[in-house]
Amino acid sequence: MAELDDVLVNKFTWKIPNALALVGSRDGERWNAMTTSWIMQLSMEPVLIGVGVDNTSITHELISGGGSFTVNLWSADDTRPFVKFSKPAVLERDGDTITLNGREVEAAPSGAPVFTEAIAWADCVVRQAIDFGTHTLYAGEVVALRIGDDDARAAAMSDTRMKYGGVKRH
Amino acid sequence: MAELDDVLVNKFTWKIPNALALVGSRDGERWNAMTTSWIMQLSMEPVLIGVGVDNTSITHELISGGGSFTVNLWSADDTRPFVKFSKPAVLERDGDTITLNGREVEAAPSGAPVFTEAIAWADCVVRQAIDFGTHTLYAGEVVALRIGDDDARAAAMSDTRMKYGGVKRH
Repeated sequence: MAELDDVLVNKFTWKIPNALALVGSRDGERWNAMTTSWIMQLSMEPVLIGVGVDNTSITHELISGGGSFTVNLWSADDTRPFVKFSKPAVLERDGDTITLNGREVEAAPSGAPVFTEAIAWADCVVRQAIDFGTHTLYAGEVVALRIGDDDARAAAMSDTRMKYGGVKRH
Repeated sequence: MAELDDVLVNKFTWKIPNALALVGSRDGERWNAMTTSWIMQLSMEPVLIGVGVDNTSITHELISGGGSFTVNLWSADDTRPFVKFSKPAVLERDGDTITLNGREVEAAPSGAPVFTEAIAWADCVVRQAIDFGTHTLYAGEVVALRIGDDDARAAAMSDTRMKYGGVKRH
């Protein structure tokens, strides 16, 4: 039995083959999207999808305020946005066109942003929020979705050199 | 906007690049392990890992009774166990050797079984159980772990032809 030290915990959690997506959020005029690898389905009836969001992030603030989020799956052929969306996104408006970090978004039925380039997205209304310590799990009921490109393979964490999870860095 | 029908919901949820692992559970003399794709980290402090477990499964019964579970990551080169462990596992004892579906297990510190063949495992004590409808999310604090093979890549759902999730089948 190995001791439970931080290095081992990081090694283990980084080995979990995580998903990867851009999670859209909005509270009024504030829009954001953030790279997230803590995503999984939580229930089949109702269909609930959960995202784990850092309690200190803007996305946490906007989902708490706005009451919804979106899950945008991205093509494995274009993983560049994931690094870019690891920081708060830059919102720009040009007439009716709204972009986050230069990528076009529109409001899903819940109001939260979805990307026109996403290969698929789901719009989720928060039914429960559970604070587990450093992160809050938002359990969202899927209220709308779109498959943009049914042939594309959705990017996973393993398509990038990114790592996320493990122990809190102090 | 596409309508929210079952086919679309299934398509979307199956596109989420899920993890894959054998989740071990035990209540006294009853031992089991089950293929699970709903796995993700929930918090960094404490380090919590969550698994989503069907409310009608033996694993649900054993985790509820035993109060712990294990997450066993498996090599991507050997995905055969995942189909086998989609049904309740067959326990066999031969002296001190215990197997589930012919694969050797031992008791982790919490008592739940871990596989000697796993490339890595984590032993998790349940801190919260949240029933989301069809499935319960067990949030377990990592109390022990072992990396058996640091070079092997952990299998993901996409390494198999399996699908899990979407809407409840009636």
